[in-house]
Amino acid sequence: MNNFKLTIAYDGGRYNGWQRQKASPNTVQGKLEAVLGELFGHKIEINGSGRTDAGVHALAQVASFAAETSLTAAEIRAYLNRYLPDDIAVTEAEAAPPRFHARLNAVGKTYIYRLWTGDCPNVFERKYVFDAGPVPFVGEMRAAAAGLLGRHDFIGFSSLKKAKKSTVRELRAIAVDELGGEVRLTLTADGFLYNMARIISGTLLEVGRGERSAESAALPLTTLDRADAGPTLPACGLTLARVEY
Amino acid sequence: MNNFKLTIAYDGGRYNGWQRQKASPNTVQGKLEAVLGELFGHKIEINGSGRTDAGVHALAQVASFAAETSLTAAEIRAYLNRYLPDDIAVTEAEAAPPRFHARLNAVGKTYIYRLWTGDCPNVFERKYVFDAGPVPFVGEMRAAAAGLLGRHDFIGFSSLKKAKKSTVRELRAIAVDELGGEVRLTLTADGFLYNMARIISGTLLEVGRGERSAESAALPLTTLDRADAGPTLPACGLTLARVEY
Repeated sequence: MNNFKLTIAYDGGRYNGWQRQKASPNTVQGKLEAVLGELFGHKIEINGSGRTDAGVHALAQVASFAAETSLTAAEIRAYLNRYLPDDIAVTEAEAAPPRFHARLNAVGKTYIYRLWTGDCPNVFERKYVFDAGPVPFVGEMRAAAAGLLGRHDFIGFSSLKKAKKSTVRELRAIAVDELGGEVRLTLTADGFLYNMARIISGTLLEVGRGERSAESAALPLTTLDRADAGPTLPACGLTLARVEY
Repeated sequence: MNNFKLTIAYDGGRYNGWQRQKASPNTVQGKLEAVLGELFGHKIEINGSGRTDAGVHALAQVASFAAETSLTAAEIRAYLNRYLPDDIAVTEAEAAPPRFHARLNAVGKTYIYRLWTGDCPNVFERKYVFDAGPVPFVGEMRAAAAGLLGRHDFIGFSSLKKAKKSTVRELRAIAVDELGGEVRLTLTADGFLYNMARIISGTLLEVGRGERSAESAALPLTTLDRADAGPTLPACGLTLARVEY
């Protein structure tokens, strides 16, 4: 068997998330598996680095799959880009070691949350940002972000009802960058709980709007209570930017 | 009467062009006039700097209109941005001198044509570029572009069947810029004939692909024959970037 690693960009707006579902064939994984199935003439199962929710985008999602084939990675990539819908693209394909697994071997992920703060709607990037309105307290957002760094139980920043597995994660970095009309949050962790990037972003947005203090943002790390965190921001502003191995 | 100047950004993908039409209400001008009509309680007619075709975008289209009102330009802008669809935005509004007219006073325009040349589809900007495939001869495109500059009869670079008015225009500048995976053409003239920006871009693309010589690109300036120019490239790659007064 040959093992392959794919790097995939997608506009998540039309999809019901990454993960294949019986109820909805309209997922990014489903589209990729359908085209690979046509290429190889039998069902192919791919493993993504993790799920992205409905509407979330990716600059560089990573997936792996095994197939008995004499095709090169470049040929597989060309076939996929020819037959995938125009909102999904395979940016890289490479032969991977036999035991490489995109989910099990991932050691870190980076998500970007884009807050549009301009006083005029962003016509051309409207599907990739959340139109947040004015965010006057960016310095306070940076202070709040610094208070979340490190190894903590992040269940208060997740939409998980109950957790069977550990909800401890290491948040390694949060950059809060001001671009023209945009506050861009770049979050890196060893892994993210369900909705964690969107809830951390929502909490920082409350700080940026002056609705809560920078210190209060870390409260869910001690109370472990979802109610102490901010809102889950919309999926459209979130992009999976990088997976580390 | 108060006279106003609006600067407007739009994603033209969903619209049947700028200009209001009886047969199709789905135009950018139609949307703007509808919202202004609601604001002022009566019909308002706006004058754009010129038409853009179905599917063509604008970073900064300019339009003017007159209304008897005590509202400020900022209030009008805020109302428009609140009620316009999310693919049209008024980026600036200002009070204008009584005789200002967006079309009659325009002295120059700049269009950008974006050729996507990356070997992988551009997922996030796919609606704003033309996926041209490889363009190996960019230096030749620059030479060809230089041969088009100046004051000429551009009817060979237009889709006009017959011309009642002068088809002489002054092409002041064409920049051919290589960005990552993109060749971007920026064309500035005192005015553009119907489809002129798209046909010049199509002719330069033929040069960039090695399908014709740089010298041959100027042939339509002497033959005045549309058949000597390249194809009319798709609307999605074209953006009206600036109007000069």
